[in-house]
Amino acid sequence: MIRLHGYYRSSAAFRVRAALALKGLAFELVPHHLRKGEQRAADYMQLQPQGLVPALEIDGHVLIQSMAIIEYLDATRPEPPLLPKDEAGRARVRGLAQLVSCDIHPVDNLRVLNRLRRELGQPEPEVVAWYNHWIAEGFEALEKLLAGSPDTGRFCHGDAPGLADLCLVPQVVNAGNFKLDLAPYPTIRRIHAACLALPAFEQGMPHNQPDSEPPAG
Amino acid sequence: MIRLHGYYRSSAAFRVRAALALKGLAFELVPHHLRKGEQRAADYMQLQPQGLVPALEIDGHVLIQSMAIIEYLDATRPEPPLLPKDEAGRARVRGLAQLVSCDIHPVDNLRVLNRLRRELGQPEPEVVAWYNHWIAEGFEALEKLLAGSPDTGRFCHGDAPGLADLCLVPQVVNAGNFKLDLAPYPTIRRIHAACLALPAFEQGMPHNQPDSEPPAG
Repeated sequence: MIRLHGYYRSSAAFRVRAALALKGLAFELVPHHLRKGEQRAADYMQLQPQGLVPALEIDGHVLIQSMAIIEYLDATRPEPPLLPKDEAGRARVRGLAQLVSCDIHPVDNLRVLNRLRRELGQPEPEVVAWYNHWIAEGFEALEKLLAGSPDTGRFCHGDAPGLADLCLVPQVVNAGNFKLDLAPYPTIRRIHAACLALPAFEQGMPHNQPDSEPPAG
Repeated sequence: MIRLHGYYRSSAAFRVRAALALKGLAFELVPHHLRKGEQRAADYMQLQPQGLVPALEIDGHVLIQSMAIIEYLDATRPEPPLLPKDEAGRARVRGLAQLVSCDIHPVDNLRVLNRLRRELGQPEPEVVAWYNHWIAEGFEALEKLLAGSPDTGRFCHGDAPGLADLCLVPQVVNAGNFKLDLAPYPTIRRIHAACLALPAFEQGMPHNQPDSEPPAG
C-alpha cells in the first residue's frame, strides 16, 4: 500500500498526487490540515521531522521532498516515464522543475507568508505583492526557456507530460490565488491547459481532494 | 571545456564548484558579481533567463539549477559517485539535499533579503532574524534525519561525500554569516567538518574563489 501524506492546497503534494495518477498507482491519502497546524502533530513529526507535506510511505520507506519522491516513483515504476532517457534532456527537465520548486514555490509557501503577516506585521496587500512578485519573476524566465527551445512540445519537454509539468501546473494554479495576470506567459498557459486535459492532473487538483474546503468568503 | 558561471558567495554555485572538484573536473570560472547586479546583464540573461547563478556550459549544453547540474555530472562522469546506487538511498540523499536547497536556501537568498530590506523596509535585525529562523528550522529537522538514521555515516549517506553533503556545507557556511548558534546540531557540525577536511570542499569555499572580496567592516 502506498500512503501519501498531503493537504489539498499544498502544491508540493499536488505534484505527487498527479505523478501517482500518471503512473496509475493507487494510494491512500492521509490529509494534514496545514492551516490548523496538524502537520506539527507529534506522530507526523516523527515521520517527517520538518512537519511539512508531502511524505510518501512506499516499499517500506518514508520518502520526503516532492522531487525526490517523483524521481523514486519514476525509477521504480518506469512506465510511463516522467523524465526523458537522455542526460541532457533529464537535466533540462530537472532545471525547469527546480526553477519552480526551488526559486518560486518555497518563497511563497504558507509558512513564509505567515511569517510576513505575523512576525513582520505586513498588511495583506504587501503579502499579495510579495506572492505575485516571485511567481511573475520566475514565470518570465520559465516562459523564455519554454518558448525558446525546440525541446518544448505539447508539454514542457516533448509531447508527454513529465516532472517539469508536474511542477508547472500547481504553480499556475497558485498564481490564481491572488489573480496574477497570466497574459504574458502564453506558453505556460498552453502547457497548463494541455496538462489539465489529462485526468491525472484534473484528479490532482485541490478542489478534487477529499479534504478540500469551500473557498472562504 | 567546462565553464561555470558563478559568484564566490553563492551557495548554489559553491555546491557545483565542490561537485566538479570531487569529480576531478577542470573548469573555467566566469564570475558574475551578484551584489553589483552583473547577473542581470543582457548577455548572461540570454544564457540563463532567470539571471541567477550557477549555470554550467558543458558538452554543448547550458545547464541551470545546481541540483540538476550535479545530477548531470554524476550521470555523465560517474566516478566517484555522488548518489548511491539503490533507489531508496538515492531518494534519501535527494530528500536531504532538497530539504536544504528547497526549504532553507531559497528563502534566505540575496534577492529575498533585498526585497525585505528595500520593498518592505525591514531593519537589519529583522532581516537577520528571518535569515537565522529558516536555517534553524531546517537544521532542526536535518539534524533529526541525520542523527536518527543508520544510513548516516562519516557523511550524510555512508562514508563517501555526495549530493546531500554538497548542499549541507554551503548552508553551514551561510549559517555563519549572522552567527547562528550551531550547538544544537552536532551531527551537522561533524559532517561539515568531515567535508572540509577534503580538498574539494575547501577549494569550493567562498574565500578561495578568484572573485572573492575581503569581508566588509
